[in-house]
Amino acid sequence: MDIKREITKIAEQAKEASRLLPLLPSKTKNKLLISMAQELIKNSQSLIRANQKDLDQAQKRNLKLSLVDRLTLSEKRIAQMAESLKNIARLEDPVGKIIKSFRRPNGLLIKKVRVPIGLIAVIYESRPNVTSDTVGLCLKSGNAIILRGGKEAINSNLAIFKTLSRSLKKYGLPAGAANLLKITDRKAVDVLLGLEGLIDLVMPRGGEGLIRRVSKNSRIPVIKHYKGICHIYVDNQANLALAKKVVFNAKVQRPGVCNAMETLLVHQTIAKKFLPSMLKELQTAGVEIRGCAKTVKIASVASAASAASAIKKAKEFDWQTEYLDLILSVKVLSNLEEAVEHINHYGSGHSEAIITENRTKAKRFLKLVDSACVYVNASTRFTDGYEFGLGAEIGISTDKLHARGPMALEELTTYKYEIFGQGQIRT
Amino acid sequence: MDIKREITKIAEQAKEASRLLPLLPSKTKNKLLISMAQELIKNSQSLIRANQKDLDQAQKRNLKLSLVDRLTLSEKRIAQMAESLKNIARLEDPVGKIIKSFRRPNGLLIKKVRVPIGLIAVIYESRPNVTSDTVGLCLKSGNAIILRGGKEAINSNLAIFKTLSRSLKKYGLPAGAANLLKITDRKAVDVLLGLEGLIDLVMPRGGEGLIRRVSKNSRIPVIKHYKGICHIYVDNQANLALAKKVVFNAKVQRPGVCNAMETLLVHQTIAKKFLPSMLKELQTAGVEIRGCAKTVKIASVASAASAASAIKKAKEFDWQTEYLDLILSVKVLSNLEEAVEHINHYGSGHSEAIITENRTKAKRFLKLVDSACVYVNASTRFTDGYEFGLGAEIGISTDKLHARGPMALEELTTYKYEIFGQGQIRT
Repeated sequence: MDIKREITKIAEQAKEASRLLPLLPSKTKNKLLISMAQELIKNSQSLIRANQKDLDQAQKRNLKLSLVDRLTLSEKRIAQMAESLKNIARLEDPVGKIIKSFRRPNGLLIKKVRVPIGLIAVIYESRPNVTSDTVGLCLKSGNAIILRGGKEAINSNLAIFKTLSRSLKKYGLPAGAANLLKITDRKAVDVLLGLEGLIDLVMPRGGEGLIRRVSKNSRIPVIKHYKGICHIYVDNQANLALAKKVVFNAKVQRPGVCNAMETLLVHQTIAKKFLPSMLKELQTAGVEIRGCAKTVKIASVASAASAASAIKKAKEFDWQTEYLDLILSVKVLSNLEEAVEHINHYGSGHSEAIITENRTKAKRFLKLVDSACVYVNASTRFTDGYEFGLGAEIGISTDKLHARGPMALEELTTYKYEIFGQGQIRT
Repeated sequence: MDIKREITKIAEQAKEASRLLPLLPSKTKNKLLISMAQELIKNSQSLIRANQKDLDQAQKRNLKLSLVDRLTLSEKRIAQMAESLKNIARLEDPVGKIIKSFRRPNGLLIKKVRVPIGLIAVIYESRPNVTSDTVGLCLKSGNAIILRGGKEAINSNLAIFKTLSRSLKKYGLPAGAANLLKITDRKAVDVLLGLEGLIDLVMPRGGEGLIRRVSKNSRIPVIKHYKGICHIYVDNQANLALAKKVVFNAKVQRPGVCNAMETLLVHQTIAKKFLPSMLKELQTAGVEIRGCAKTVKIASVASAASAASAIKKAKEFDWQTEYLDLILSVKVLSNLEEAVEHINHYGSGHSEAIITENRTKAKRFLKLVDSACVYVNASTRFTDGYEFGLGAEIGISTDKLHARGPMALEELTTYKYEIFGQGQIRT
């Protein structure tokens, strides 16, 4: 009950603050972000000391090494956090941008104008850099924010937030414009998710478990990204050298990210020609292959000839899985339609690619695949706010409403209609 | 359990159909809509006969007259339904429209393209015209649809839907592109609202009770409009003649609709000058006034002088209420900030207006009021898809994500990124 009252109070104050943020000039917001960047650098040592407490705890609790890595702050990482804030300062302010403007026959002038969403809650896990990134992106887009980071990073997050708060005060931001919850109890999340009417949007950032829990329990709109089960379909009319290069890149260059390929789909006509050398190259790079019956057959013939390793048979589980690892499922199919069906059935709506020289087929694939980003002859690894030239990214949405694909400043806004009259009435 | 299996099957088929709808050319969709309009006219008599069954039931169940009126189909109303379909056929097709197109330094061409949302469920009450309007709007924007109308209109809805289905077959639409649930059991709604992953969007249309129930129980994104508690603030720098005209129009012209004014806010400096004649005019038109203490005082002095009726004292309840009737709550306040605070606290985020000749104040009001439509010197009654020139309307959203204000064809779409490469990989 106390947690509920405390968090509700924080949200009420944050909502109040959010009412005033649309008035903040871009210049003030930019100065604020640069000041926050400077504070981070200036306080590097104390941030690293606070982070050490979390690292000590992590060791006691035997956290996974990958988690410890994400948790760790170094001077270099703090410098990157500062750089990211400066970068956000340089981006165009979406608030106040006129999306459309038109005059009606009765003389009414109607402007559709970008405005902040209001109050955004971000629930995240171990990466402390999310704290400064998110504060930067939300304030630049005129939104108030409530952060709820993971228990494992609480000391780091509190230290970062305290550092940023100095700049908030310096630039006279309304009290409560940015908040970090000290309460790491899981109850705090449930309370947040029930504050419909106060909080306008919830964004979970972290593992699939967290995201599912948040989106299941929220009474507030959620924009999320469950996972990226990305596909590449190599058509029978593909340039096979190009296909090889793109497939290798999408799987191997950085397998642990959401835009890496998890399943390769190959047209049956070119499978025998394409797969043996492709699979060998992938295996040489350490990729474990799990193939459909046809793939296994092609590979076994090839491996007998070339001494490449044999491959495992893929199970239903494999088509549904985001490995985030050097593992690839491979399926041979009879045509583009089958590929589309497989993608729309097993995919996560993130990023898919077709490799083909046939424009008509490329167009058909683009239209039929129901994903945020659909590529022709390029690696799925480009689905990213920076790669798209948005300058920053708060996440990638695999939802279809409001925002889809890389989310940057513009996606953190909504719009309102401003209508200018001279006494017009309805008759 | 049977209901669940049946509805899930319908949704699965509808989802399959939705995959193909993005391929439908605008021309085919337009011909389809015109054919549907013709079928409605051709079958007027049988529609009216089916409607009579619902009207008989309504009489037996002693339904309210206003409900019976909404339920009634006449030749004229059927002609309007047909006209509305033809009108949608004439509107520009949003699908395939390029929102943005840009080339990255690495040569990737990125297009942000409008695409249908997918499968939309519409849950509505007694108006049978919603059946044809919604089918028209959803199909034109390339979406598959599941309709779930109210029990009280089931015979009319089934007859309308059967009539429209003839055209669907004639134009070869994929089976399941449009569906009307025969099951009027309330369980059907609960099943629909749980079909996350199949249904992409739920739109409730009807009374506040229905909308709250749907949005509370849905696991699927909902776009809704609870109610319209619209305000007009008459500033001390208002043109009072203009104010009088606009206020009268916003309350009296059609009090039963969501964009009618429910609360009048008046700056204290002009209250004594403005209110007596304004209130008298409203009372003469049959409006019951419920005022704050200051309003009551001003009115009582005035009524002693002019023999206008005295007014009731407004209670907390009044500021929170969408009367949809000839009732108006009136509050005198000391400045624009108080007006904004009142609106953001009690309003429903629908439509508000300021009457002022001061541009700076107008701008401040526009920025600070957190509503879909904010007017300067015009009646709130213009918040409407047709009045905005959108050509049609599926509803008005008081939500802030995805769509805000009048929703037409464009708001029934989302976007995807289509990315064209020549073998680009990430390094």
